[in-house]
Amino acid sequence: MLFAISSPGNSLDAALLDKINNKTKPLGALGQLEQLALQIGRMQKTLTPALTSPQILVFAGDHGAAKAGVSAYPQDVTWQMVENFLAGGAAINVFSRQNGLALAVVDCGVAYDFGARDGLIDAKVALGTANYIEEAAMSAAQCAQAMANGATIVRELAAKGCNLVGFGEMGIGNTAAASLLTHCLTGVPLADCIGRGTGLDDAGLIRKQALLEKALARYQASGAAHDPLTLLAEFGGFEIATMVGAMLAAAEARMTLLIDGFIVSSAALVACRLQPALRDYCIFCHRSAEPGARAQLQAMNAEPLIDLGLRLGEGTGAALAYPLVKAAVSFLNEMASFESAGVSDKS
Amino acid sequence: MLFAISSPGNSLDAALLDKINNKTKPLGALGQLEQLALQIGRMQKTLTPALTSPQILVFAGDHGAAKAGVSAYPQDVTWQMVENFLAGGAAINVFSRQNGLALAVVDCGVAYDFGARDGLIDAKVALGTANYIEEAAMSAAQCAQAMANGATIVRELAAKGCNLVGFGEMGIGNTAAASLLTHCLTGVPLADCIGRGTGLDDAGLIRKQALLEKALARYQASGAAHDPLTLLAEFGGFEIATMVGAMLAAAEARMTLLIDGFIVSSAALVACRLQPALRDYCIFCHRSAEPGARAQLQAMNAEPLIDLGLRLGEGTGAALAYPLVKAAVSFLNEMASFESAGVSDKS
Repeated sequence: MLFAISSPGNSLDAALLDKINNKTKPLGALGQLEQLALQIGRMQKTLTPALTSPQILVFAGDHGAAKAGVSAYPQDVTWQMVENFLAGGAAINVFSRQNGLALAVVDCGVAYDFGARDGLIDAKVALGTANYIEEAAMSAAQCAQAMANGATIVRELAAKGCNLVGFGEMGIGNTAAASLLTHCLTGVPLADCIGRGTGLDDAGLIRKQALLEKALARYQASGAAHDPLTLLAEFGGFEIATMVGAMLAAAEARMTLLIDGFIVSSAALVACRLQPALRDYCIFCHRSAEPGARAQLQAMNAEPLIDLGLRLGEGTGAALAYPLVKAAVSFLNEMASFESAGVSDKS
Repeated sequence: MLFAISSPGNSLDAALLDKINNKTKPLGALGQLEQLALQIGRMQKTLTPALTSPQILVFAGDHGAAKAGVSAYPQDVTWQMVENFLAGGAAINVFSRQNGLALAVVDCGVAYDFGARDGLIDAKVALGTANYIEEAAMSAAQCAQAMANGATIVRELAAKGCNLVGFGEMGIGNTAAASLLTHCLTGVPLADCIGRGTGLDDAGLIRKQALLEKALARYQASGAAHDPLTLLAEFGGFEIATMVGAMLAAAEARMTLLIDGFIVSSAALVACRLQPALRDYCIFCHRSAEPGARAQLQAMNAEPLIDLGLRLGEGTGAALAYPLVKAAVSFLNEMASFESAGVSDKS
């Protein structure tokens, strides 16, 4: 699978900075929003960017390792929460509605048969991954299939005029998968990449650490390669692999990618290792409290927009940060300049 | 002037926490938004709070000390920016429009005659304050007048059904006034309360520090009292004094107060010293980069919602944080419970 991702490029930088700096405000006074305006102007190669048909995608999948006890919640919560998304009652529904974002759920591999449903995109690879403590979570072919599914979904959105995708996920046990990927891709010790997920107690955290060490030892003993795609197949959930493909297609289409918390960032990390130019299409939305998030953000040189102590996933960080992203575009397009407003500049 | 501000009270806490904790999310997973939902539920004494007719007020005034050189910008920028607000071209216009907030500008004492204008509330006490380097910025009577003006404006909003006010300000030189107030009310050394404001260079910062030390020495030699109202009259701008009255009236009416950055926080600090119960009606929106903001936030035990490196004022931090405040109310009202959604709780 090939993705032709080009760097956003800086040919418009002088004009964009000139426009930003001539707005009726002290130089740099809009802080991170000014950097966002520059970034989005670069992606869209225009001085008048626009965010069109913004879309949240929640990628859902089940993890074979969940039954081994890496989460505080039973595996059934994955499909139950998908039903909750479809019924409109989850946090991501509330925040997407409030902020004018369309929402769709992608079944990447939930261990449940939903049938055809409004708001649900069927991209199921299998009824959950294998247990990575005993074997690779998925085959290379399944991983490629998941990535292709993600790319197809995003290309269809782009064809309909969408140029911003917020990434969210649901999958009981998926912080564990994200921890393994983060450790393997950044080299930060595994123990420093593992956290309480949805709320493990001390005993649960110790159990999770032991299980993930076992999974890592199994992988190391297997002689499998250490490249991003192999690691994705070894430990990833189908929702993570589908997101990787979706992100690559989104960057290829020069769309804006809103990156949520720890699990979405693990997909972004894989995608960035595959195609480093993808990084500059990403806006990091929320600083996750998971310990491994630190390693991810450092590896991608990222500074998230908000830090509210969220640990929910679903794309909630992306949906909540979206108005700030929109504000960056709005000020660039709508604010008066010193000249147009007749305001004196700095003396 | 008397304000009857009662503590929000915690009689509904058990019911509010029960409602929050039964939403379909891990316990505490919405972080600071859960604290906000509790706080607003307390203020409104209900399990189903609502934010109605939300309003941004930008309080504008001129400072006699501005001509002495405490700002990087000429004093005329105050009225020019008010014109920019009235024309809809400033950052606060853009962000208020985007986020569904009504906006009005309050002329508290700009050194300019605007005449009657749409969107402008005339509450002018005088054509700017006196220069506090030489004498008190305003008389006690002027200070009381400004506070009464602010209270009247907010009471009229409340009577029309508004229950949330975001505070913003405009006044060349007003970070200097805020620095003096912050020093006098917190005891943090003056030098640690002074910053670059709208963008002073090193020489400008040294000049500002020397001028404010002079103002402080003048006040100390005068034998004036050290109570919050005296300090407000000594150093405050008319926009700061008007905000203090507006804040007190808003808390009295159990409204939600969105506190912007450094200058608005200096008004909040005065108001909290006058009526400590006011604190719990405040939501601190933006972490200002001004060095004195640290002392203010510590004094009010506040943790702002966003930290984007803004240093613009106008209420931009409040307007940008508003969707997060709204999200707290939305999730409390709209999210499904574990029971209603049929989702299994933690095992």
